[in-house]
Amino acid sequence: MRLRLQHYLLLSLLFIAAGVRAETGYDLWLRYASVSESYATDIASTVHSIHASHSSPTVDAAVDELVRGIRGMTERVPQTGEPGASIVLRTPQTSELVASLDLPFDEIGDEGFVVRHVDGTLVIAANRDIGLLYGAFALLRRLQMETPLDELDEVSAPAMQLRLLNHWDNLSGFVERGYAGASLWDWHRLPEYKDPRYTDYARANASLGINGTVLNNVNANASILTPLYLEKVASIADALRPWGIRVYLSARFSAPVEIGGLTTADPLDEDVQQWWAAKVAEIYELIPDFGGFLVKANSEGQPGPQDYDRTHADGANMLADALAPHGGVVMWRAFVYSADVKVDRVRQAYDEFVPLDGTFRDNVLVQAKNGPLDFQPREPFHPLFGGMTQTPLMMEFQVTKEYLGFASHLAYLGTLWEEVLQSDTYAQGPGSTVARVIDGTIDGHALTGIAGVSNIGADINWSGSVFAQSNWYAYGRFAWNPDASAATVAEEWVRQTFSNDPRFIAPVVDMMMASREAVVNYMTPLGLTHLMATGHHYGPGPWVDDLGRDDWNPYYYHRADKNGIGFDRSERGSGAADQYFEPLSAIYGNVKATPDNLLLWFHRVDWDHETGAGLPVWESLLRHYDRGVETVSRFRDTWAGLGEFVDPERFEETTAFLEIQEREARWWRDASIAYFQSVSGLPLPDGVRPPEHELEVYKAIEFPHLEGY
Amino acid sequence: MRLRLQHYLLLSLLFIAAGVRAETGYDLWLRYASVSESYATDIASTVHSIHASHSSPTVDAAVDELVRGIRGMTERVPQTGEPGASIVLRTPQTSELVASLDLPFDEIGDEGFVVRHVDGTLVIAANRDIGLLYGAFALLRRLQMETPLDELDEVSAPAMQLRLLNHWDNLSGFVERGYAGASLWDWHRLPEYKDPRYTDYARANASLGINGTVLNNVNANASILTPLYLEKVASIADALRPWGIRVYLSARFSAPVEIGGLTTADPLDEDVQQWWAAKVAEIYELIPDFGGFLVKANSEGQPGPQDYDRTHADGANMLADALAPHGGVVMWRAFVYSADVKVDRVRQAYDEFVPLDGTFRDNVLVQAKNGPLDFQPREPFHPLFGGMTQTPLMMEFQVTKEYLGFASHLAYLGTLWEEVLQSDTYAQGPGSTVARVIDGTIDGHALTGIAGVSNIGADINWSGSVFAQSNWYAYGRFAWNPDASAATVAEEWVRQTFSNDPRFIAPVVDMMMASREAVVNYMTPLGLTHLMATGHHYGPGPWVDDLGRDDWNPYYYHRADKNGIGFDRSERGSGAADQYFEPLSAIYGNVKATPDNLLLWFHRVDWDHETGAGLPVWESLLRHYDRGVETVSRFRDTWAGLGEFVDPERFEETTAFLEIQEREARWWRDASIAYFQSVSGLPLPDGVRPPEHELEVYKAIEFPHLEGY
Repeated sequence: MRLRLQHYLLLSLLFIAAGVRAETGYDLWLRYASVSESYATDIASTVHSIHASHSSPTVDAAVDELVRGIRGMTERVPQTGEPGASIVLRTPQTSELVASLDLPFDEIGDEGFVVRHVDGTLVIAANRDIGLLYGAFALLRRLQMETPLDELDEVSAPAMQLRLLNHWDNLSGFVERGYAGASLWDWHRLPEYKDPRYTDYARANASLGINGTVLNNVNANASILTPLYLEKVASIADALRPWGIRVYLSARFSAPVEIGGLTTADPLDEDVQQWWAAKVAEIYELIPDFGGFLVKANSEGQPGPQDYDRTHADGANMLADALAPHGGVVMWRAFVYSADVKVDRVRQAYDEFVPLDGTFRDNVLVQAKNGPLDFQPREPFHPLFGGMTQTPLMMEFQVTKEYLGFASHLAYLGTLWEEVLQSDTYAQGPGSTVARVIDGTIDGHALTGIAGVSNIGADINWSGSVFAQSNWYAYGRFAWNPDASAATVAEEWVRQTFSNDPRFIAPVVDMMMASREAVVNYMTPLGLTHLMATGHHYGPGPWVDDLGRDDWNPYYYHRADKNGIGFDRSERGSGAADQYFEPLSAIYGNVKATPDNLLLWFHRVDWDHETGAGLPVWESLLRHYDRGVETVSRFRDTWAGLGEFVDPERFEETTAFLEIQEREARWWRDASIAYFQSVSGLPLPDGVRPPEHELEVYKAIEFPHLEGY
Repeated sequence: MRLRLQHYLLLSLLFIAAGVRAETGYDLWLRYASVSESYATDIASTVHSIHASHSSPTVDAAVDELVRGIRGMTERVPQTGEPGASIVLRTPQTSELVASLDLPFDEIGDEGFVVRHVDGTLVIAANRDIGLLYGAFALLRRLQMETPLDELDEVSAPAMQLRLLNHWDNLSGFVERGYAGASLWDWHRLPEYKDPRYTDYARANASLGINGTVLNNVNANASILTPLYLEKVASIADALRPWGIRVYLSARFSAPVEIGGLTTADPLDEDVQQWWAAKVAEIYELIPDFGGFLVKANSEGQPGPQDYDRTHADGANMLADALAPHGGVVMWRAFVYSADVKVDRVRQAYDEFVPLDGTFRDNVLVQAKNGPLDFQPREPFHPLFGGMTQTPLMMEFQVTKEYLGFASHLAYLGTLWEEVLQSDTYAQGPGSTVARVIDGTIDGHALTGIAGVSNIGADINWSGSVFAQSNWYAYGRFAWNPDASAATVAEEWVRQTFSNDPRFIAPVVDMMMASREAVVNYMTPLGLTHLMATGHHYGPGPWVDDLGRDDWNPYYYHRADKNGIGFDRSERGSGAADQYFEPLSAIYGNVKATPDNLLLWFHRVDWDHETGAGLPVWESLLRHYDRGVETVSRFRDTWAGLGEFVDPERFEETTAFLEIQEREARWWRDASIAYFQSVSGLPLPDGVRPPEHELEVYKAIEFPHLEGY
């Protein structure tokens, strides 16, 4: 019997076109999939074989990655033993002929590299193995971006020594301010089980030159320093080591009491000093290249030296002395604000740390957030940069978007970081940019560093959204080169992550470049700050004025009432503007000279005060809110037209997230306008859309369960 | 200039062989990768096209999956429009000729299917679309197992109506007793963003016939019933619906107070009844096929009807009345034990629920755990099965291994479930197995169901380890057919997940089949139970006797002292053995008749009591502990020889986890022996290895931060 039936075929053509495996985003910018056929042919015809002058775990990793990348781009595996066209990896120590090429080995230091096309051969040269690895990734980046092979010529070295990620990961697996799932670190099954993700994490970081990682939350648990956990830390360190990444830990200052059986953690107590010396020796026994400690002390309830009437320097130096014999460093956070200090919170770190300048040991860095408050969408740079000359200042950026819409909102932070790094402190006259402070140029520091609070978790796509990955990428690129261009970095990322098609690159880079300002506009325009809801820091709460401490309340920061808005930090106010060097202190101290984007940060003004844009501040505020929402609406339109260039998974994800972002941008705008109108009593000018709801509706909105991950 | 250098090539050959993408385990048993070349050729030459008689979301899903599977196995995409050899999907309503094939449509009900090879055509036939989907997955399972095409002939229908997963997922993203990362449910970004994992989750469940899922923890938060969350729940329901999966929620009994503004949640209060009726109507407005509520009430601190001096039936019936007009059900958990009841904890659920039999509404099921205590490595079956005749009893299995080594230990639970389901209750004489109770045969219930506490999280591999995936698979297979064979199910899973090579299948199935008994042996042999450390339930704590409630302490359960060991549940003791039907009550009530594997569950015996194995209980105990450790050591040896059949990622993962398991099996053995020897005062017989450490060392071991995921 034969079945002959009228029937129709149901095939998911889209599915077939996209391949059997759905795109998950796991591969980050190391997809090796975006090059054109003609360029792939160029690579395939040039690269037959890969040669390294010697073997080591790091060099082997470089070769493996080159094989993976070439194979991904060309679908051919580089062959062995063929003479002629190839990639070679060399150090001058291992190759006389590379030494004879007259490459700039002097300029590139321990971690730099040269990638150059020499007579049909792609040469990767470096002084050390890690430079070869970084060079291999640089070459792959160029290839993914379709740089013509005969134009390959890059000489590069990092501007700073310590290029770190800070994981705010708890030992329970919870990630504080993490929006990408649970912690990557599988503490329970370490040390035996090294999750393969540790290696992929290391690859991604090495591709950017990130060379260190602090595994645990700055709000630290002392357990991490017990033998049980140190063995696990050592196992992670083993997995990361071939990729040039050293492990650091957040140290809880009271650990000698909590796990050491002592009755005090006083840094001047000899038993305490000996306990730390022994603990550090125990760590180095397990992890010979251990990097050192990050410490949050006497800040937001954390224990610290002030509990014993000692200074931050006393505390930092005690740990530094324990670490110095082993080559470790202390990164001591300047994020402090005291409950009993009545002055302006944003002045406190400066007031407290500048007097300590010159009293820290040589292996101490003071780690300051980019602004004097707390990772807000916009702040002026932290006046400690330039304000402490005898102490290496380490920059702390927040890669995770605690205050910029978590992983849902598209907010590329390259522009924020470029703005901070290129800010001129004038510490040694014009040109004393923050970049020059942290790279040690201004004050002649040899020890330099930068840290990024990680946005990485166990979500398949690592960062909670594909566009959040761009911030991990950009952080690494700025850590390598603080003078990088946000636009260039964005384009690099787009090309590697998505496509080299200019019809895709241009609009997407435009979106990214406009995105952080859009967030500023719909959340905290004109220098407003800290307006978010309590606790989870998501959504608007400008009306909040009932929290236990003044400076936890949004009202503390905007002080809006019938007469005006803003926080006076001029000489008539808190004087925080004076913490900057001239001419900045004069500019920030003068309401007429202060740029609009920091106006209400530094000044309290009447509602009819005319902004630089030539409008009353009330109208200017409204215009910024509208602009923020409009920008996000435009993103949606732009993205909707780009489906042909993206796999369906990442296209749909971004479509959904932009939908969320637009809804929430409206929420921010409407709630903020409803509130500020309720205090200003001013009418909305013609043409300004009134908030969708009454203020009470916005006040009643609850957004529960956001503290999780 | 030409570089001619002596060099050697470094290629990771392993890497190349394994392909560009590392194996993550994400694809579960739906890998479509394990068939031999010759079988793939058979498929490719038979299957040119796939035809469905009609289109619907469910039928489209079936066709998509067939395309995906055939393509994965053959690397060919089934073509369109070709007559002849093909796969056809048909219902009798849509195809006269299929109706004429004389297929057993009467036997297969709404969800069953027929898969049959008819004259060169693979026919998938069913009464409803969902049956076609299940048939498609059944065919793919057969193909992955290399069943000869002309032998394909399967007629199958599920034995129970409700085949559910219970997620103990909190709204924060934390999963209680979850060992596979954060919750799958991205509450924050719902409803807009439907993570593609929801679809892959649905595919995996549909491949097993799982047709419902309770999204949130039985320790419920009332927020899930607010409009904010119901909209998100509806979005998940939309994603799961094409795959035949209905959404259920855990309802917090006090929700009318917490989110409804009422002052009481008394089930006999009219306002409360109206609140629930309105809430249920609101839910069905959003989710027309909403399944119903799971309720944990008056259990471990949860609110419930007894707070108002009402019975469990009063509470369940109130919710049932609200759900009945919409076709929803109440699953009321029988896991109750009261703090102020002084009798044996394991008798309490029976004592409390049996008197309520006959008082529940028709749309209520009472959901009981498989044993009367709490998901221990071994318990006798729960006497409620067979003990309540007028109420549908729903089985609750725990797929996540709260008490069997989390996701680290290899413990295949198919054998546990087979043991429970095939246990004869004798409720209606011999043959009244638990399977026959829950499938409704014994007492003539139309409403039937089974639930598995999920082991699924956001880890890339879903379940925390590849072997933990086998328990998800096996749960689904037993839910479809409670008379399934654990060995057959294990083999199915191994073939689809790894390989059809008999040199791999046989030893791995052997490992799986021996694994649960190994855990029993090294944790709780001879009917011992509840010996684990406090809180996290990981690692041994038989010495614990200082917790707030007697029945939270391991000592409560083993009662070991100088004279003997065990809990007397015979007539002389708590009488719990009497809760079983004859002849079981006589068997369990008689120390000589009770099988060794439940000896100390039912009896307190002297240390020199002779077990069924002919040894004094003390020696028998030692022998079991040793056997447990030895079995795991053997697993390690077996697995070490299987590398050639497995990708490196899953091989290394399992190698590491078996290393952990062996270390921890020794820990359990040594700590338990050290403790029991300390109370028995008995010497170790010759040849028995003494514990590695003193008892105090084991008591001092801390295993912090395990409550996380």
